[in-house]
Amino acid sequence: MKAHIAVDIGGTQLRAGLYNLDSIKPTKLVKTSTQHADETPLHRLISLIESVWSEDIEISSIGVAAPGPVNPYEGIVYTTPNIPGWENFPLGSHLFEYFNVPILIGNDANLAALGEWQFGIGQGHSHLIYLTVSTGVGGGIIVENRPLLGVKGLAAEIGHITVLPDGPLCSCGQPGHLEALSSGTAITNWFSEAIAKGFPSKLSGQKNLTSKVIAEAANNGEELAIAAFKRAGFYLGLGIINLLHIFNPSIIIIGGGVSRSGNLFIEPIKTTLEQQVISSRYLDDLMITSPSLGDEAGLVGALVLARSHDKDHLI
Amino acid sequence: MKAHIAVDIGGTQLRAGLYNLDSIKPTKLVKTSTQHADETPLHRLISLIESVWSEDIEISSIGVAAPGPVNPYEGIVYTTPNIPGWENFPLGSHLFEYFNVPILIGNDANLAALGEWQFGIGQGHSHLIYLTVSTGVGGGIIVENRPLLGVKGLAAEIGHITVLPDGPLCSCGQPGHLEALSSGTAITNWFSEAIAKGFPSKLSGQKNLTSKVIAEAANNGEELAIAAFKRAGFYLGLGIINLLHIFNPSIIIIGGGVSRSGNLFIEPIKTTLEQQVISSRYLDDLMITSPSLGDEAGLVGALVLARSHDKDHLI
Repeated sequence: MKAHIAVDIGGTQLRAGLYNLDSIKPTKLVKTSTQHADETPLHRLISLIESVWSEDIEISSIGVAAPGPVNPYEGIVYTTPNIPGWENFPLGSHLFEYFNVPILIGNDANLAALGEWQFGIGQGHSHLIYLTVSTGVGGGIIVENRPLLGVKGLAAEIGHITVLPDGPLCSCGQPGHLEALSSGTAITNWFSEAIAKGFPSKLSGQKNLTSKVIAEAANNGEELAIAAFKRAGFYLGLGIINLLHIFNPSIIIIGGGVSRSGNLFIEPIKTTLEQQVISSRYLDDLMITSPSLGDEAGLVGALVLARSHDKDHLI
Repeated sequence: MKAHIAVDIGGTQLRAGLYNLDSIKPTKLVKTSTQHADETPLHRLISLIESVWSEDIEISSIGVAAPGPVNPYEGIVYTTPNIPGWENFPLGSHLFEYFNVPILIGNDANLAALGEWQFGIGQGHSHLIYLTVSTGVGGGIIVENRPLLGVKGLAAEIGHITVLPDGPLCSCGQPGHLEALSSGTAITNWFSEAIAKGFPSKLSGQKNLTSKVIAEAANNGEELAIAAFKRAGFYLGLGIINLLHIFNPSIIIIGGGVSRSGNLFIEPIKTTLEQQVISSRYLDDLMITSPSLGDEAGLVGALVLARSHDKDHLI
């Protein structure tokens, strides 16, 4: 019997699952922390994969979801925000040397899109946009039932669409990106700056503000907090409008912590779409929805990637 | 011997060519005006196709490049800017009824991209962005060697990317689109408004300003004219940066009348790309170039589309 292993590399947690064919329920699933004083993340990853490996079953391939930009054609992690030293890191070669089975690597947000498309809410949609809005903004795009990767795997950097040329700086250093206007960090920054400017808020003086705390204040009727989400939603709406006009998809999936603020965030997005779309044809049959796989999407996407090796093309 | 017919429908001119297999040189090529007092554009189109039709050769299919958004799956012209009455117009059915061969229809800018990809400067590039900057801004995108069409054929509306949320209104009525900031019309409007505000210019008082006239003034050293192209190029650069981060292509083809202003327009675009790209990896092997098929690109794309019918998929 054949099986596959899927791995999700997070900044704080590593997960690995062993999967029998034709199921997304792992036979075995283990987790561990990514960082450890005595061991490199690569060693921890190898040990983790070993712990789900089975000698009784033939492992066809290993699929890996990695944070940050990767080159999926060459199995190289260009850079990761949370793992120092992984710069142009040949993760694929390292794992292949050790396990001697095909290794397939993808960006975690791209793979989450792939997971939702194959096994989640995106099933049956040939053109799909997946966005995850938490501390940053990431995403993945499916075009004609295939993930959009680009010539070097650097496509679908949705968080880095410019929506306000003279806007606040993004984590990447450039001005006015979607991530700098609609992420949880952006909401918190704008809210804190408004308080510093003297706008009244019950949260004035509170340390360690988060978008979750601001969402609670908004749900309790605080105007400034509501305005913070309205602004973030407006700009996310602008970013999505661009994606509608470029991709003409049939589904937009919005996940991540900030999206769980619900209508507070989703309503201003929808209002922007309705007001700024160039033709109602883009919205007529468009589904705007939450993901259905939750935190599993990246792992499931890595599984889809691993299984794709048995077919004649990458995905 | 088999052959194909390709047709390009312009607002002012209709063109039709008869093509033998394995060549993009038409055996026969005819042109006529689109509008005529005594005849509908559809009748003129049918007569034109008849004039290249040959009874000696089997015509496999007809490919049609239509202006404005179209549904290529159903052969419907959603709307065209210059042909009144073509609203949700079933052009494919009309032509099929008359000629009884498969009719394949595409948007002209999408097909120009396809033409450049198959037979022009874009050959060998799996991920390609084609932009045409003239009175408006249009474009077409190739992803993994296939045209990006979207679920209803409405994709690749590059001119309607928002680059300045509170910017001037686009021809579509929405604010701040690429077309409203970087087209020839946008350049002329901005320049005229600057003169109206009192900025000095040798063109002050001149009627019927065009971006070509402004380009000449710029090449003669006029500051205001140079600034007009710098601004248009900056925003086109912003739009292209978004497309780089979303598609990670290996080639950007910039055509259309305004692009023929040369470095005046291209240099500010390149400067913006270099300043605002999130990683030099996007630019390392990127080719930024002019089209090689010129005005023939749409017709050649229609030919590629016609020939695609002999294969197992749309393109």
